[in-house]
Amino acid sequence: MKNIAITGGTHGNELTGVFLVKKWLLNPKLIERSNFNTTVIHTNKEAIKECRRYIDRDLNRAFSSTLLSSKNSKHYEDRLAKEINKKLGTKGSSNPKMDFIVDLHTTTANMGLSIVVSNQSDITWRVIDYLVHKEPNLKIYRWKGDEEDAFVDSIAPHGFAIEVGAVPQGVLRADLFLETEQLVYHILDFFEKFNNQEVKEKYNKNLTIYDHASLVDYPRDEKNELIAMVHPNRQDRDFELIKKGDPLFLTLEGETINYQEDEPMHGLFINEAAYYEKGFALCLARKVII
Amino acid sequence: MKNIAITGGTHGNELTGVFLVKKWLLNPKLIERSNFNTTVIHTNKEAIKECRRYIDRDLNRAFSSTLLSSKNSKHYEDRLAKEINKKLGTKGSSNPKMDFIVDLHTTTANMGLSIVVSNQSDITWRVIDYLVHKEPNLKIYRWKGDEEDAFVDSIAPHGFAIEVGAVPQGVLRADLFLETEQLVYHILDFFEKFNNQEVKEKYNKNLTIYDHASLVDYPRDEKNELIAMVHPNRQDRDFELIKKGDPLFLTLEGETINYQEDEPMHGLFINEAAYYEKGFALCLARKVII
Repeated sequence: MKNIAITGGTHGNELTGVFLVKKWLLNPKLIERSNFNTTVIHTNKEAIKECRRYIDRDLNRAFSSTLLSSKNSKHYEDRLAKEINKKLGTKGSSNPKMDFIVDLHTTTANMGLSIVVSNQSDITWRVIDYLVHKEPNLKIYRWKGDEEDAFVDSIAPHGFAIEVGAVPQGVLRADLFLETEQLVYHILDFFEKFNNQEVKEKYNKNLTIYDHASLVDYPRDEKNELIAMVHPNRQDRDFELIKKGDPLFLTLEGETINYQEDEPMHGLFINEAAYYEKGFALCLARKVII
Repeated sequence: MKNIAITGGTHGNELTGVFLVKKWLLNPKLIERSNFNTTVIHTNKEAIKECRRYIDRDLNRAFSSTLLSSKNSKHYEDRLAKEINKKLGTKGSSNPKMDFIVDLHTTTANMGLSIVVSNQSDITWRVIDYLVHKEPNLKIYRWKGDEEDAFVDSIAPHGFAIEVGAVPQGVLRADLFLETEQLVYHILDFFEKFNNQEVKEKYNKNLTIYDHASLVDYPRDEKNELIAMVHPNRQDRDFELIKKGDPLFLTLEGETINYQEDEPMHGLFINEAAYYEKGFALCLARKVII
């Protein structure tokens, strides 16, 4: 592992990543290690300036092969994705500029300190195994909700996104800033040891992860407007089990809508602000041991 | 009291007010009372559509005499303020269309259920006295931070804003939705009883309020960018006392900045997302009995 990138501000209103990158640009020694290079960048500078998630569309869905190879990209983020791919990729290349990308995110859902993995590889799982050993509260979500992985970290052979919450968009919370910072230092420490062949094959006997199953949208009217909200008994209970008959939504009129499926599932990203427009109120996942 | 207005969506990303108004437009019986008219409106429809605080500038600072009398308003919200003033005001008129305006807001700060009063009057204090009696956790903040009161409710002779939090921008939280809804019903019930001369002169022996003293900005660099965040020991502790030497901020480098003043103060609106651009990290207030 010769080149590691840490990216922040992929969503311009997720301030933990924005300010961690700022800190490391001012103090690069903090992310230097003895046997690889660390690159740190703000990915969506225009969105950061405006403190918005994006200018035209979500940058973290813009790294698909189709969008990256398109000749006429009218959206700002599509053009930006191509630039970032040149700088840190290129995607699918046998000689990529970066070996590993960590992309820093926050969520308004009560996800605690968590990792979203879609770019699976042996190296990625080994660093996760180490991180869970260092931070036993760390939760792992394996995302399989898209046809192709179009996240920032997909342009390197290995990587993942860090998601921390709950924190509002446009707010910097010191506690989550410090937790995310520490997690990144663990990642860098792992790779330094890895390059020195000082890491174990396995740090945990088993690794428990949350495996993506499906998405649940808010109840909506014919104009696609919300007519219900996440039920107060479900709010903030990310990673907890939802069983048939458990309250899921409360309509504006006060009627409870229950979870109807026979198979119990764990709820994740419950009531995340950015997903109202994407059309989901929560993700359902199976807790599995790998 | 013949005409009461409830306004929501003054900030388009504060969804509690947006969806309560939606609920009441669909079910107007809920806000009808026997002896006055209730008007309910979405104030900033364009901002609601885009789920943004505002389009050009903050609508809730646009009701100053100067802006309302300006002939050439280039900002969308300045034109909108004039329309709303015609519909619900006019400001300062001896024959206003509305007697009382309740404007519904949310905050990312941990303000609980609170009221911001700037449009002081005997009627306004009497309804607040009743509300504190009904909801003992309700907090009252008397705001005096602007030269002239330019809030939505300032165009009626009486009124105030409801602020509830913590809730992220762009998120609808059922618990705070239900609490705000109940508080509005108490307001309407009060006026119905008031018109029937069924209310007491005084519901509480004393009324404890938080009286605005000053604003504290984040530490910033020469480019006006934040170089520190609210200290983890201060975050979420709205309405608590801050004494000399208490930690206030944590710089990106990890240095603690303490509160330096001799007079202890109560912190309010701590780390509210919308106030980063206004230039304050928290409000300081004195707890007083009136």
